[in-house]
Amino acid sequence: MSTQNPIFIPGPTNIPEELRRAIDFPSIDHRSALFAEMFQPLAAGLRRVLKSEDAQIAVFPATGTGAWEATVTNLLSPGDRVLASRYGMFSHRWIDLCRRHGLQVEVIEAAWGEGAAVQDMEQALAADREHQIRAVLVCHNETATGVRTDIAAVRRAIDAAGHPAMLFVDGVSSIASMDFRMDEWGVDAAIAGSQKGFMLPAGLAIIALSAKAEAALQTARGARCFFDIRDMLKSNANGGFPYTPPVNLIRGLSVSIEMLEREGLENVFARHARIAEGVRKAVAAWGLSLCARHPSLYSDTVSAIVVPAGFDATRIVTHAARTYGVAFGVGLGEVAGKVFRIGHLGSLTDVMMLSGLAAAEMVMADLRLPVEMGSGVAAAQDYYRATAGSAGSSVTAAA
Amino acid sequence: MSTQNPIFIPGPTNIPEELRRAIDFPSIDHRSALFAEMFQPLAAGLRRVLKSEDAQIAVFPATGTGAWEATVTNLLSPGDRVLASRYGMFSHRWIDLCRRHGLQVEVIEAAWGEGAAVQDMEQALAADREHQIRAVLVCHNETATGVRTDIAAVRRAIDAAGHPAMLFVDGVSSIASMDFRMDEWGVDAAIAGSQKGFMLPAGLAIIALSAKAEAALQTARGARCFFDIRDMLKSNANGGFPYTPPVNLIRGLSVSIEMLEREGLENVFARHARIAEGVRKAVAAWGLSLCARHPSLYSDTVSAIVVPAGFDATRIVTHAARTYGVAFGVGLGEVAGKVFRIGHLGSLTDVMMLSGLAAAEMVMADLRLPVEMGSGVAAAQDYYRATAGSAGSSVTAAA
Amino acid sequence: MSTQNPIFIPGPTNIPEELRRAIDFPSIDHRSALFAEMFQPLAAGLRRVLKSEDAQIAVFPATGTGAWEATVTNLLSPGDRVLASRYGMFSHRWIDLCRRHGLQVEVIEAAWGEGAAVQDMEQALAADREHQIRAVLVCHNETATGVRTDIAAVRRAIDAAGHPAMLFVDGVSSIASMDFRMDEWGVDAAIAGSQKGFMLPAGLAIIALSAKAEAALQTARGARCFFDIRDMLKSNANGGFPYTPPVNLIRGLSVSIEMLEREGLENVFARHARIAEGVRKAVAAWGLSLCARHPSLYSDTVSAIVVPAGFDATRIVTHAARTYGVAFGVGLGEVAGKVFRIGHLGSLTDVMMLSGLAAAEMVMADLRLPVEMGSGVAAAQDYYRATAGSAGSSVTAAA
Amino acid sequence: MSTQNPIFIPGPTNIPEELRRAIDFPSIDHRSALFAEMFQPLAAGLRRVLKSEDAQIAVFPATGTGAWEATVTNLLSPGDRVLASRYGMFSHRWIDLCRRHGLQVEVIEAAWGEGAAVQDMEQALAADREHQIRAVLVCHNETATGVRTDIAAVRRAIDAAGHPAMLFVDGVSSIASMDFRMDEWGVDAAIAGSQKGFMLPAGLAIIALSAKAEAALQTARGARCFFDIRDMLKSNANGGFPYTPPVNLIRGLSVSIEMLEREGLENVFARHARIAEGVRKAVAAWGLSLCARHPSLYSDTVSAIVVPAGFDATRIVTHAARTYGVAFGVGLGEVAGKVFRIGHLGSLTDVMMLSGLAAAEMVMADLRLPVEMGSGVAAAQDYYRATAGSAGSSVTAAA
Repeated sequence: MSTQNPIFIPGPTNIPEELRRAIDFPSIDHRSALFAEMFQPLAAGLRRVLKSEDAQIAVFPATGTGAWEATVTNLLSPGDRVLASRYGMFSHRWIDLCRRHGLQVEVIEAAWGEGAAVQDMEQALAADREHQIRAVLVCHNETATGVRTDIAAVRRAIDAAGHPAMLFVDGVSSIASMDFRMDEWGVDAAIAGSQKGFMLPAGLAIIALSAKAEAALQTARGARCFFDIRDMLKSNANGGFPYTPPVNLIRGLSVSIEMLEREGLENVFARHARIAEGVRKAVAAWGLSLCARHPSLYSDTVSAIVVPAGFDATRIVTHAARTYGVAFGVGLGEVAGKVFRIGHLGSLTDVMMLSGLAAAEMVMADLRLPVEMGSGVAAAQDYYRATAGSAGSSVTAAA
Repeated sequence: MSTQNPIFIPGPTNIPEELRRAIDFPSIDHRSALFAEMFQPLAAGLRRVLKSEDAQIAVFPATGTGAWEATVTNLLSPGDRVLASRYGMFSHRWIDLCRRHGLQVEVIEAAWGEGAAVQDMEQALAADREHQIRAVLVCHNETATGVRTDIAAVRRAIDAAGHPAMLFVDGVSSIASMDFRMDEWGVDAAIAGSQKGFMLPAGLAIIALSAKAEAALQTARGARCFFDIRDMLKSNANGGFPYTPPVNLIRGLSVSIEMLEREGLENVFARHARIAEGVRKAVAAWGLSLCARHPSLYSDTVSAIVVPAGFDATRIVTHAARTYGVAFGVGLGEVAGKVFRIGHLGSLTDVMMLSGLAAAEMVMADLRLPVEMGSGVAAAQDYYRATAGSAGSSVTAAA
Repeated sequence: MSTQNPIFIPGPTNIPEELRRAIDFPSIDHRSALFAEMFQPLAAGLRRVLKSEDAQIAVFPATGTGAWEATVTNLLSPGDRVLASRYGMFSHRWIDLCRRHGLQVEVIEAAWGEGAAVQDMEQALAADREHQIRAVLVCHNETATGVRTDIAAVRRAIDAAGHPAMLFVDGVSSIASMDFRMDEWGVDAAIAGSQKGFMLPAGLAIIALSAKAEAALQTARGARCFFDIRDMLKSNANGGFPYTPPVNLIRGLSVSIEMLEREGLENVFARHARIAEGVRKAVAAWGLSLCARHPSLYSDTVSAIVVPAGFDATRIVTHAARTYGVAFGVGLGEVAGKVFRIGHLGSLTDVMMLSGLAAAEMVMADLRLPVEMGSGVAAAQDYYRATAGSAGSSVTAAA
Repeated sequence: MSTQNPIFIPGPTNIPEELRRAIDFPSIDHRSALFAEMFQPLAAGLRRVLKSEDAQIAVFPATGTGAWEATVTNLLSPGDRVLASRYGMFSHRWIDLCRRHGLQVEVIEAAWGEGAAVQDMEQALAADREHQIRAVLVCHNETATGVRTDIAAVRRAIDAAGHPAMLFVDGVSSIASMDFRMDEWGVDAAIAGSQKGFMLPAGLAIIALSAKAEAALQTARGARCFFDIRDMLKSNANGGFPYTPPVNLIRGLSVSIEMLEREGLENVFARHARIAEGVRKAVAAWGLSLCARHPSLYSDTVSAIVVPAGFDATRIVTHAARTYGVAFGVGLGEVAGKVFRIGHLGSLTDVMMLSGLAAAEMVMADLRLPVEMGSGVAAAQDYYRATAGSAGSSVTAAA
């Protein structure tokens, strides 16, 4: 397998040249002014991406899983109750993490292919008269099924139940690619990583906290030290870190935000939506359907495509890698073998996407799925042509 | 325009990661052993690529045009006669260069779309009873028209005429991508550059000389100093250069040859042929034809595609760049406006090529040429699928 | 402040070109064979560096602090007793981390400038008749004071007390720079990071476990999920990670080990010792002394230099950065203001070190400390000349 | 030999990170707007560096030798007379190049260690009543001897003789490091390269022409094609090149000029002067002298240091490379074996320079020259301390 073809996994994403160059530099003294310069603009930039006026920002040298852990250990205490909906592998894993940290998780199951079960969650909250539920956990974009949950609706449900629970949102595979409105949606903890919409290698866990969450920091008794947000905020206030910071990725994240804002955040979202819609046109042309059950649930960063019953979808991913050097994502958990996934986020163009669709067609035909060569490509081409020149057709990286 | 999409111009070509890394290093002392280590393997490696046992190799910090100049000023004297066939922009330019250096060029015209007019050349040589023609000049691959000339046939023509003229071959856009047999074909001067099959940035002019050419070095009175091959060979023999060498590209060229040999030269040629054939299948599916008039002339590194009469082919290139960020080549000289060119050489995969074909389809349709979406892509996909797993389907660069 | 001068902080260290290039590559599919190839050699390589036959290796996307946390949460349970000696900022912080995770830490204080109080530790172990102490924690190289503790002696103390406690050793600023003998010393958990002797950016937390420690994994009840070593080992066994791996740094670590072994581990240690001794000769020539109280305690990776009483050592670091663009380390904790630190580990040559010593002399003189220009440089030069050509004079990185 | 230590040869120079990153990017279409964007600001930027209002600028993919050749073949005709002074290896080589291109060179010899023999040149011009001398050739900075010639004085000599000859100045090792005033000095052709003050790899030959020189372009009959400035200017006017341009270095040159102007040209010159003066203080402290015979001749980019009679200076360079991995320059031509050279130009700090001086001391002592350790370093330190904070103490590259 080579690194010549773009990758089509739902993160890490293709890294633009500008970010490749931004993170490639010599060691500097992380206690120097040079580091402070790199780090200083980060929090404000992240707030703009998250559409928050004054969220507290903490960035750890870890991954999204680390951000989950930081969130629950910093804002909750062992024994606390939380409410979560499970509708895919990532919502499942977050629930599992909570349990390992001693939380009581009330799980609202939903079909894999649906979003968070908002109505059931509202009922559960309403039923919690004593307000023992401390937090509601939702994955904005369930990466395993390509499903977007309406966070505004979750917020309405919490409010309708008159419940004071905090709202924690995993935006790892949505933030910086799909619209995210931290303040408007009343999100108390927003979670992101460096390796998706921010187009960097994995290695940064990003957490944004509302004022309510910040207050919870002081009382939570979750065991933490590496992920202690209080220590982090205190050190950050002095321009530093409680330990050696991931200097290169921090600089990369600053430059990534510059790139996103140069393109325009709404243009970035429109570009993701446009590329994703092309993929969906192709899927329809292939006679296949998405795991996501309604158009309102369609993710703009990843599409999970259901294969005909009896066919093992993992073979598509294996064959694509081995025969054409192209990376797609396998199905995970309940949908393992039933879906394969096309990631379409980060630094990507319509033209790059077409090569992924063309590869998928060859792979499916090689494996004797009834797909006509060029059919999905043509459907996507039609869509891309019709929308060429729109905001969403802009490209990210200049040399 | 971004640098996200691959480029489809007939050179410079997409640079593999391994070469990007190989040429990115700090300044070293070019009089040190470290430079000698980088430089030493180059000549033998180039001989293997050129299939020559003992050609003398000279590498200058210049481009292919510089290699043309070095060849004619080092091997010929002002007033000398040479025979050349003109059948495209690059064969034309080489003739022009010869004239500026005071040579008398007997030009055998051929249609743009044909190769060198071998029979006419044989007649001209036969007619030259006094053997005043000192050299025969041929472009192996005419980049402007996508035409390959049969160099073995040129050699046979020279021999049939019993003529002692030297044979100079421009292999800038063929060497390291298409089979080149310096010794078998009796080539006296072979010319290449770094930015085509060697997959590097422009900046190296490569010249290989037969023993006969080497003898001519001593008697030629062409004015030269920067391009003096005698000085170069003398300095090289001591591990150095007559002036500051292009250290980074020299190292890159050594690594490039390693990559080519790791893949296997014949595999490299097969890969180029396979990708090119996919492009040709697409062109046929579009209902268009190549500038090259017979299949035996088809180049495996570049295809010049004839557009319907009355349509300005340059618009395709302009629209592709502006609307889809994709680079194709314009027509040059006699075929300006009549053809556009797709480069398919260097570090390229079938999947990357499909994105170029898909882009070309969108562009042509946008400009109201009667091309069906997905039609060329499908034709190429069929071919690539049928030949997947063959020698030619290997990929070049590992991370 | 520029990045032109080498840095002289005790990590992160100067990154050799070869590693800069090794970690600069595009996103790949971390579930692909390509990742498995990069990751596979890592464990065996780390074992060779640690001199262990069969330690279990876990590498997390975090820093040394994360490795501390992983060690104590995976091998111990809240309420467990551990024994630790405090003799500098890093031994102090590790104790603090243990307490935050609910451990009872019996602290044996030693002067900052001394190593672990081995005799007192032996007494404490002997006094623990019930064997309630589960683990003994030691920093091999206390980065804050430039003190090396004799880990073999700690092992002898544990054995002399006939105590079954595990031995956890922080080797963050020693491993890969100074000799470390995991098996011979009976270390149960060895901790390292990427940004010191391995010459990479920060971002990898490295943990090696003895068989005894591995057994403890199964019974420990420390809260962990991101840092769960069981999950990590299980995923690693399948060639993967429990979450997105830090691909670039993992590849970098493999290449780093290749570089260390190409130079020869013992040569690496000799090189560090040689450069460090030159620094110590300079310090003596300046009429200053080290924080480390006996030559047997001298660290080969960092020297903490005591300034005259009443002088604020931090001014040296600030002035060096601002006036000469050179980074030294400040004193921390108890020795803040009393020492400044010169890091001399990782990718460093004698010649680079001399520039650091020359800079330190200028800085001290600027601040009116009675240091003669060239005096320390001359002392180091004499030593480097006398030892030039020895094993320790080899250099690390080739282009 | 490693690439860890800075190099101290008189070019190529240490490349700043910012330029390393600027030239490391993928192939682009050199006929696209993206290339035009990179290329467009170059000419104006070079004019500012050269202090010329309206010089014509041509940049070729070659080296300084190529720029010499371009100058003489474009502005002169075979048989033309030129006047040149020889006082080092580079002035010698330029004379040799002229002769190979059929020019009649009247050579005014000067001692190696002196600058151009201005008075003798004035006499020769005055004696040329018929004004047959077409051009006067001078090396601004003779790299072989570390001698700067006063170009304003050469201009005055030409004017005093009332002679219409053009003035060609080789500024390869001065331009962008030492003050150069093209218009004020009446320079008709100024010559530079990428690998000295511009801090890039070798590969660009830079030529600037006065209006008088531009007129000569049209009448000169020198044989040229690759180096034809008329072709170059014509293509440039359309945003392109007559052949494949060296895209990466062209972008690098634009960024280099940005860096120089960000620092401030006068600050750049002051920095070079300051670092050079430190070297000279060291040389004096060693009891040695420079090849340059008067302080007014001292070069700020390279110092050629005379070794005691009977000692082979080349041994210093060899021993430095082999034992300490440090690169100095050997003596060339008449001063081979008599001098060794320290390059101190481009991206360099006082602290880096001190490591070069310290290395030189060790080398000389190893070879039993009577040099006291630290003596030269101390002299330079004193000077650098005294001038720290001045304009010349600024540094070039930010990360």
